[in-house]
Amino acid sequence: MGMDPDAVAKAFVDHYYSTFDANRGGLANLYQDNSMLTFEGQKIQGSQNIVAKLTSLPFQQCQHSVSTVDCQPSGPSGGVLVFVSGNLQLAGEQHALKFSQMFHLMPTPQGSFYVLNDIFRLNYA
Amino acid sequence: MGMDPDAVAKAFVDHYYSTFDANRGGLANLYQDNSMLTFEGQKIQGSQNIVAKLTSLPFQQCQHSVSTVDCQPSGPSGGVLVFVSGNLQLAGEQHALKFSQMFHLMPTPQGSFYVLNDIFRLNYA
Repeated sequence: MGMDPDAVAKAFVDHYYSTFDANRGGLANLYQDNSMLTFEGQKIQGSQNIVAKLTSLPFQQCQHSVSTVDCQPSGPSGGVLVFVSGNLQLAGEQHALKFSQMFHLMPTPQGSFYVLNDIFRLNYA
Repeated sequence: MGMDPDAVAKAFVDHYYSTFDANRGGLANLYQDNSMLTFEGQKIQGSQNIVAKLTSLPFQQCQHSVSTVDCQPSGPSGGVLVFVSGNLQLAGEQHALKFSQMFHLMPTPQGSFYVLNDIFRLNYA
């Protein structure tokens, strides 16, 4: 395999948040029909529903700044767990919001990864 | 199966933090040799090493207060992902620390679960 979980995690995190901040609709191809998102406690399943949720969030522009990225292999299926903490700056807001998010990436037959599990929480001060 | 991930997650979280706060050494049987802990960026593998780390943390008494618990099934292997946020009060400290932690629970042949993946981060203000 030669798959390095740290390299996978770093590449994914860079791609995910830059896409989120520039063009949320572009996240659709990172999810599949069995993908799950829990966003602030709300459970959503499937790429189409997940992207509908993300694109309907009540802000237009945002910028994620990643503080920490941790990762571990999730077992024999070749999955990678990615755990992120950081700040989310919304346009027009004075203070950034702190967030934590975890992803479970699963390999695709094409040699890439998709997001099977995604859990997002704001960390209120 | 009839396994309810929410019920598994709630029972695990209650058991894990009450054991952590009362008797950290008692966490040993929740981990196995292939278990991984990433604690504030430090990677540790195996039940014995993980418990050695947890019992050597530089505080004697602590109390976890859980704020949120989210969970999702992790795939066809029957695993459960658990994502926790909360506060950690150390004895003698004025302010609690905010933390986020994720666990990947895997089923055992005996019908229980063990922790395959554990990632812990303090959320600095």
